[in-house]
Amino acid sequence: MSMNVTVIGGGLIGSSWAALFLAHGHQVCVHDVAPDVAVRVRAELRRIQPFLAQMGLRIDPDAPGLTFNADLAGAVRQADVVQECGPERLAFKQSLWAQVEAHCPAEALLLSSSSGITASMQARKMKTPERMLVGHPFNPPHLIPLVEVVPGRRTSQAAVGRARAFYLALGKQAVVLNKEIPGFVANRIQAAVIRESVSLVRQGVVSVEDLDVAVQSSLGLRWATGGPFVSAHLGGGAGGIQAFWQQFAGGLQLLWLHMRLKPVWLTPRAQATLADSVMRRYGAQSIDQLASARDRQQIALLQALKASARAEETTP
Amino acid sequence: MSMNVTVIGGGLIGSSWAALFLAHGHQVCVHDVAPDVAVRVRAELRRIQPFLAQMGLRIDPDAPGLTFNADLAGAVRQADVVQECGPERLAFKQSLWAQVEAHCPAEALLLSSSSGITASMQARKMKTPERMLVGHPFNPPHLIPLVEVVPGRRTSQAAVGRARAFYLALGKQAVVLNKEIPGFVANRIQAAVIRESVSLVRQGVVSVEDLDVAVQSSLGLRWATGGPFVSAHLGGGAGGIQAFWQQFAGGLQLLWLHMRLKPVWLTPRAQATLADSVMRRYGAQSIDQLASARDRQQIALLQALKASARAEETTP
Repeated sequence: MSMNVTVIGGGLIGSSWAALFLAHGHQVCVHDVAPDVAVRVRAELRRIQPFLAQMGLRIDPDAPGLTFNADLAGAVRQADVVQECGPERLAFKQSLWAQVEAHCPAEALLLSSSSGITASMQARKMKTPERMLVGHPFNPPHLIPLVEVVPGRRTSQAAVGRARAFYLALGKQAVVLNKEIPGFVANRIQAAVIRESVSLVRQGVVSVEDLDVAVQSSLGLRWATGGPFVSAHLGGGAGGIQAFWQQFAGGLQLLWLHMRLKPVWLTPRAQATLADSVMRRYGAQSIDQLASARDRQQIALLQALKASARAEETTP
Repeated sequence: MSMNVTVIGGGLIGSSWAALFLAHGHQVCVHDVAPDVAVRVRAELRRIQPFLAQMGLRIDPDAPGLTFNADLAGAVRQADVVQECGPERLAFKQSLWAQVEAHCPAEALLLSSSSGITASMQARKMKTPERMLVGHPFNPPHLIPLVEVVPGRRTSQAAVGRARAFYLALGKQAVVLNKEIPGFVANRIQAAVIRESVSLVRQGVVSVEDLDVAVQSSLGLRWATGGPFVSAHLGGGAGGIQAFWQQFAGGLQLLWLHMRLKPVWLTPRAQATLADSVMRRYGAQSIDQLASARDRQQIALLQALKASARAEETTP
């Protein structure tokens, strides 16, 4: 079903969402006060066009379905859905939503891409907070399947259901959180991994590059095929999750205690030392080269997983 | 170069190592006191044969290059390399190595698959600790590339180099750790992820199954293409790792503090509740079915990554 989707903010996340919305037949209006927004968004759409094509998604950066409006009231006037991708500042978002709700249709669904500011906080000045919630994508949104759907304290169940359906129809994996928590789910788990990675390098156990190799060639591969709980279930062998706890709960508890006793501090000096190591290992290639290579690999992995799932379905 | 490799312990890890050694042309002698070891190992080799074949590796479970010897002295007498895969008990390993060194050639390299008992502890009763170290595979060893090479305090640099070369020749990603630490690298990072996953589910933020979906459809995919440090480098956008720290170091430090203030306890009750949720989600399929599906997916991912790497090399 084609909808009018307003994207607020024409940066990288906004452009990526716009591409995905266009690819699924929606009318997209981008609101941004920057005078060159149309040029920049269309350039970004052209850059990601071949990646989308590999996933079977077609977009036309010059299609009439993509419009731009520097006037917020006008940009949301006919919106069925608003996907906010503005700066991560509480005051900005609070005042934005108060304006949006004043000018958009009464039934419009209001979604924020924020990774850090909860819907409860964003909606504090809203008269209709029940239709506002977080739909947090994982970068880049046009590629990575996950969207964390995080309702605020005053968000209605109906809005949660509509948000989930909206993202599922885009081919996303929409995961609904039951409670707001800083970092949501994926970024908290990522933070836990970065914490331990920094700790291991700072303690001199392993180099930055060897740590990356170790994770990529073991856990990354494992978690790309199943999350931590199914992995634990299989880690228990024939006895499954019960056997896993029996065998490993004590050791895990000890490691957790060990980690708790060793707080990790990202001092400016620690940041600089780690950045030096990262640049020594990866600095020879540009960010663009590295990111494009990563995106091509991620598409290859997504395709491999899809093909593998199809094969599973056809085997008895 | 074909070598005589003795595998101590004919369980799942031992069988998997044996398969990989055979596939690379080594002579393999399995030592295990269980009377049915030959039948069990050959059955396991037959089970994993098709998985190996998909990775281009051929084995013949009935080839004369695979022998069994219940007498430890005889099993190691001609060994170039010993890969220990016995029970994770300190006393067992200490007495084992003392016997092995008494009967194996003076230049044999002695490797332990242990995930938890360091080489320093295992070698305490050895006369030649300089040639003993940990070569810890990630399960299943015949599939997952990572091997953590962890020397003890008395291991020689020469032995570290030989171990690394031995594993590289098997097509493994051999990562050398500079220091012994409980859990080594990969299992510590996995423990950090399980800790945060358990915490999020216990706090009622997300269900077991949604947490698995969230990790699989975002971080798993990301880390399968690159580890935490290169991911941070790319997470900083055009400014790379420096910009990443500038933007996220404060937030990470806050999340780490938040995690530290919320210790996670794997009480028997917590284990049981989590196990119930895992069984509700995954219990309809057998462990065998789930593990085989995971292994097929992991092979598909490894092949996709290889094909992608080849494509990168040929693009300018």
